[in-house]
Amino acid sequence: MAAHYIVRSVDRAEPDVIAALRAAGVATVHEAAGRIGLLGPEVQPRQTGAAIGGSAITVSSHPGDNLMLHAAVEMCRPGDVLVVTTTSPSTDGMFGDLLATSLMTRGVVGLVIDAGVRDIATLREIGFPVWSRAVHAQGTVKASPGSVNVPVVAAGQLVRGGDIVIADDDGVLVLRAASGPAVADAAAKRLENEAGKRETLAGGVLGVDLYNLRPLLEELGVRYVDRLPE
Amino acid sequence: MAAHYIVRSVDRAEPDVIAALRAAGVATVHEAAGRIGLLGPEVQPRQTGAAIGGSAITVSSHPGDNLMLHAAVEMCRPGDVLVVTTTSPSTDGMFGDLLATSLMTRGVVGLVIDAGVRDIATLREIGFPVWSRAVHAQGTVKASPGSVNVPVVAAGQLVRGGDIVIADDDGVLVLRAASGPAVADAAAKRLENEAGKRETLAGGVLGVDLYNLRPLLEELGVRYVDRLPE
Amino acid sequence: MAAHYIVRSVDRAEPDVIAALRAAGVATVHEAAGRIGLLGPEVQPRQTGAAIGGSAITVSSHPGDNLMLHAAVEMCRPGDVLVVTTTSPSTDGMFGDLLATSLMTRGVVGLVIDAGVRDIATLREIGFPVWSRAVHAQGTVKASPGSVNVPVVAAGQLVRGGDIVIADDDGVLVLRAASGPAVADAAAKRLENEAGKRETLAGGVLGVDLYNLRPLLEELGVRYVDRLPE
Amino acid sequence: MAAHYIVRSVDRAEPDVIAALRAAGVATVHEAAGRIGLLGPEVQPRQTGAAIGGSAITVSSHPGDNLMLHAAVEMCRPGDVLVVTTTSPSTDGMFGDLLATSLMTRGVVGLVIDAGVRDIATLREIGFPVWSRAVHAQGTVKASPGSVNVPVVAAGQLVRGGDIVIADDDGVLVLRAASGPAVADAAAKRLENEAGKRETLAGGVLGVDLYNLRPLLEELGVRYVDRLPE
Amino acid sequence: MAAHYIVRSVDRAEPDVIAALRAAGVATVHEAAGRIGLLGPEVQPRQTGAAIGGSAITVSSHPGDNLMLHAAVEMCRPGDVLVVTTTSPSTDGMFGDLLATSLMTRGVVGLVIDAGVRDIATLREIGFPVWSRAVHAQGTVKASPGSVNVPVVAAGQLVRGGDIVIADDDGVLVLRAASGPAVADAAAKRLENEAGKRETLAGGVLGVDLYNLRPLLEELGVRYVDRLPE
Amino acid sequence: MAAHYIVRSVDRAEPDVIAALRAAGVATVHEAAGRIGLLGPEVQPRQTGAAIGGSAITVSSHPGDNLMLHAAVEMCRPGDVLVVTTTSPSTDGMFGDLLATSLMTRGVVGLVIDAGVRDIATLREIGFPVWSRAVHAQGTVKASPGSVNVPVVAAGQLVRGGDIVIADDDGVLVLRAASGPAVADAAAKRLENEAGKRETLAGGVLGVDLYNLRPLLEELGVRYVDRLPE
Repeated sequence: MAAHYIVRSVDRAEPDVIAALRAAGVATVHEAAGRIGLLGPEVQPRQTGAAIGGSAITVSSHPGDNLMLHAAVEMCRPGDVLVVTTTSPSTDGMFGDLLATSLMTRGVVGLVIDAGVRDIATLREIGFPVWSRAVHAQGTVKASPGSVNVPVVAAGQLVRGGDIVIADDDGVLVLRAASGPAVADAAAKRLENEAGKRETLAGGVLGVDLYNLRPLLEELGVRYVDRLPE
Repeated sequence: MAAHYIVRSVDRAEPDVIAALRAAGVATVHEAAGRIGLLGPEVQPRQTGAAIGGSAITVSSHPGDNLMLHAAVEMCRPGDVLVVTTTSPSTDGMFGDLLATSLMTRGVVGLVIDAGVRDIATLREIGFPVWSRAVHAQGTVKASPGSVNVPVVAAGQLVRGGDIVIADDDGVLVLRAASGPAVADAAAKRLENEAGKRETLAGGVLGVDLYNLRPLLEELGVRYVDRLPE
Repeated sequence: MAAHYIVRSVDRAEPDVIAALRAAGVATVHEAAGRIGLLGPEVQPRQTGAAIGGSAITVSSHPGDNLMLHAAVEMCRPGDVLVVTTTSPSTDGMFGDLLATSLMTRGVVGLVIDAGVRDIATLREIGFPVWSRAVHAQGTVKASPGSVNVPVVAAGQLVRGGDIVIADDDGVLVLRAASGPAVADAAAKRLENEAGKRETLAGGVLGVDLYNLRPLLEELGVRYVDRLPE
Repeated sequence: MAAHYIVRSVDRAEPDVIAALRAAGVATVHEAAGRIGLLGPEVQPRQTGAAIGGSAITVSSHPGDNLMLHAAVEMCRPGDVLVVTTTSPSTDGMFGDLLATSLMTRGVVGLVIDAGVRDIATLREIGFPVWSRAVHAQGTVKASPGSVNVPVVAAGQLVRGGDIVIADDDGVLVLRAASGPAVADAAAKRLENEAGKRETLAGGVLGVDLYNLRPLLEELGVRYVDRLPE
Repeated sequence: MAAHYIVRSVDRAEPDVIAALRAAGVATVHEAAGRIGLLGPEVQPRQTGAAIGGSAITVSSHPGDNLMLHAAVEMCRPGDVLVVTTTSPSTDGMFGDLLATSLMTRGVVGLVIDAGVRDIATLREIGFPVWSRAVHAQGTVKASPGSVNVPVVAAGQLVRGGDIVIADDDGVLVLRAASGPAVADAAAKRLENEAGKRETLAGGVLGVDLYNLRPLLEELGVRYVDRLPE
Repeated sequence: MAAHYIVRSVDRAEPDVIAALRAAGVATVHEAAGRIGLLGPEVQPRQTGAAIGGSAITVSSHPGDNLMLHAAVEMCRPGDVLVVTTTSPSTDGMFGDLLATSLMTRGVVGLVIDAGVRDIATLREIGFPVWSRAVHAQGTVKASPGSVNVPVVAAGQLVRGGDIVIADDDGVLVLRAASGPAVADAAAKRLENEAGKRETLAGGVLGVDLYNLRPLLEELGVRYVDRLPE
């Protein structure tokens, strides 16, 4: 029992699908996918303006130990995103500029970590984007086993090796690779639809009219009054 | 019971009073008002360097539901600030770029929300400033009733429709509209006073002398020693 | 009992040692010192890109009261860092631009505070760097006694007057003054070592090989598989 | 500005109305009142099985200072509940067995405090129930002004002197005194109604049938399937 | 997309396997299973001394909405445990004594909910055990769709319909049904082993000897000294 | 650098001094000591009604690793209290019934741990009292070095081997062994004094009179009014 695996093969989505989802952005893809897949707000961007998309290489690590991150690097290909969790809550700085150098060398596009990072000034300088629970310099050991590319839970979401991960200033979203094309289509339609709505709203039309919400407000018993009743 | 209202009329403060308070800034106005009205630090600026002042249009909303934000837009006038709370704690992204477009079209100067926002990159790009509890893309429904311009509690402070709201990098402050002129006067005097103090301190005079604190320290039994006693 | 002291003399480290540690950075010095001395991640930089090093002048203050900060200013010399704690948790804005003006006049290089600051826009503008638990405009009184240059606990670390404090985008670290030269030497070696590793990793060598982790992974029972077993 | 008041007179609700609301309990009264008035879950019962109802005597206090609690005692009458807040977040133990002795002597039925209490073993022993944010022995001073019977915000709810406060194992609820009789009537009906529902449900009828939820589930697109589609 | 399902059939483990795991307890089963499956400590027992085991019926619910809990009741059989999550963080009291009555009527043994419960005094009185994130009376609506028996993430763990859930004063653990027998065997061995260890330790043998830790301490460079070096 | 020590000898206070402090209780001793030494409220009693006093045996441990707890047992004598911290925040269940058995065999009176415990039902049953940050069954490894009887920071307080630790339902307090007799005397006087005050207050005398607070309220500008001014 309690076996620890490093899984070599994962099924990745097509690069153009991932690129389309990345371009649509986290908020739009979240809606297009049916409001699923969003990581909790505790995992935050640690830079401004970065937007990435890629295939997840997942890591399950003992807290305070970054052994398995080193093992995971070998499994990464260009276009991948490293997704790291710990087996219990931790803010230790498991990831810094040396690991980032390794990942960039392999073409990895970013890091999502439900724990801490360090060397953040260097990470910003070399342009390696990270989404993390904390920035903390706390050092870690290399002593305990873990796994790579097993299903993990990061900030409340299940992530599997090969899943599509997109991340931007709004947070991080995960999608099953197989659902990518359909969600990308839905997102494209949604973007077009939103562009029209934006123009309409900018023209002064109200959302209560555009979305036909007045009947709903009435049905729900919301009353318009000039002054608040005592 | 449990009535839900959209109140059309609120009593706003004069624009020049609001402008003076905005210019004085949150920290100074908080002191000038007698150290009242400050929202808790959990509602934070989501951009750097913005400073707004306006009249509150308040929204009380069910968590995970942004129906009432759409209803509130119609109640907004140029110079207003939308102030949103939920009936129980929530970090959902109830507000994004479409609602911001609507509000900007109506001349609203910013958003204060004790919940989440999304499309934050776009909000920064179009220059619509927000103070929020979270940035989270989590989508919401339009299904449950709420109220507009009723008194709400946002981050520990009571806010009523028409209240003066100022917000900057230090946070968010709320004042009753009627108290605006007196507080603005007090803030102006305070600014002048602080300018003098700043010059004095920059000249090397110590705060313990400027504020005459040495007698107080002595009275409180604080002892000066060369070395810490064992 | 319950005596309150302002201690005039502290033993500071040599400026060149402090400068070397500042240049090495928090993450490297933390490792060089044996993974000790790091303040918790709740005390965060409130600007981007600042890096300071100095000698601690410590303050123990009643929550909601900044009397002792004023008393501490007089104890500061050029190159010092003010380190402030409260006797119970507080996010009040105990420190603003007037105190910063005083400190800059005396050559103090920055503030570390396990509480709140305000006037943050001005602090950024005048270039006085702060690491704090919160940004909050909440005003404080000057009514209760405290101490200066007694040992305090800030964000989980013991800090004594004269201790070396370095702070950058990765957080804040404290070291006993006497350990400074040895740690600075270890940090210098570490920097050199890391430069070599960075080059090796950038050349495509994997961390599992560079650090010889494959035998450890095997010993820990981590198995390489092509696909995850059901 | 920044005036501090001790208000002597508040308008209390009738004792039998308060007793009826206390007997109905926090959850039922919250529903009967239209889902309003509930304090946040951070203010918790510090004993098991206590249930109180009374008229609020409110206190606004500087953090780390219990001067105003002493001033408030004099304003209390039999059947009152002391409701304490601080002007910024605090967990200090502002209240202990001596203040409890004073309040019990005056017939006060309990304490609701958005801060800390101490001497909790004694409070349980003498049967004085408290709902608080923390149990912490941290001592406080008597140095800063505050107010009694002004409107305060406690755990996210506005509380005014004379408001009805009920508290039990489910938490704390506040109601305007004037709304007491109508809410008590609604609560009585609700209790009767719930008794019938409880019997029906205990008989095996499902909530989806009792509340006629099947059409709603269908309208919302929820599908019944034997197995989860891949 | 965004389909909502109520899945009727789940594959449950054998009752005697579940009973054996329940009897072994959460801490022992967690170890026996290889240190997996434990929900985070934020979901806590709301009574003392209860210990349950059962098959999960999972619910994914909109925050502030308990419609799907009612739909889930129909899917429950004797020996099941209801496991509830919301699509974003919530402490609302989605569950109270009426739902408990329904579940007890159907033989459900307890509730695990990553949100709030209410009527807690009654739940304790009628002996229906709950593990929850909060006790809060906050009422909810019945307006938004969700799912039953789809995989959910509760307090950081993936839970699927039919999974084995055990819960006691130490928290909550989830296991795949298929792994139940092997884990139950491992737990039985572990219990026996621990009984022996307990006796040995009670006899005065030290853990450092029993587990042969002295060589490890030496290898790790831990030094025994009489006094702490300066 | 980064040396790890197990220190064999610590200087303990006299048993009768410790017993007197334990009897006086945490809140009274905290006041008698000058409001120092109190651990933060996040470390809570995990049983009701226990009150202990003893000499600290301190442990500094890697998170997720309980190796050093086993090493510490050997250093414990009758009347000691084990005080455990981790080098970064952790809620893992580092301590359970086997370690408790070992400690009870050696006469240790309780555990204070700034991390998690498990087997809590058994700990309560066998009467071994614990104060902890969490109850969590999460298992730990035995792989990383740490120290015993070095100074540690637990919940914001410095604790050294041999320090006096007292703990009860109000929390945990630490005192230097040398200060024990003087604090015990001050506590005894305080208890006597409080007994008199309690009687006076129970007789209906108000705290504002007993402590002569009316002049202070007036000096601070607190005004008595019959009704709140508009």
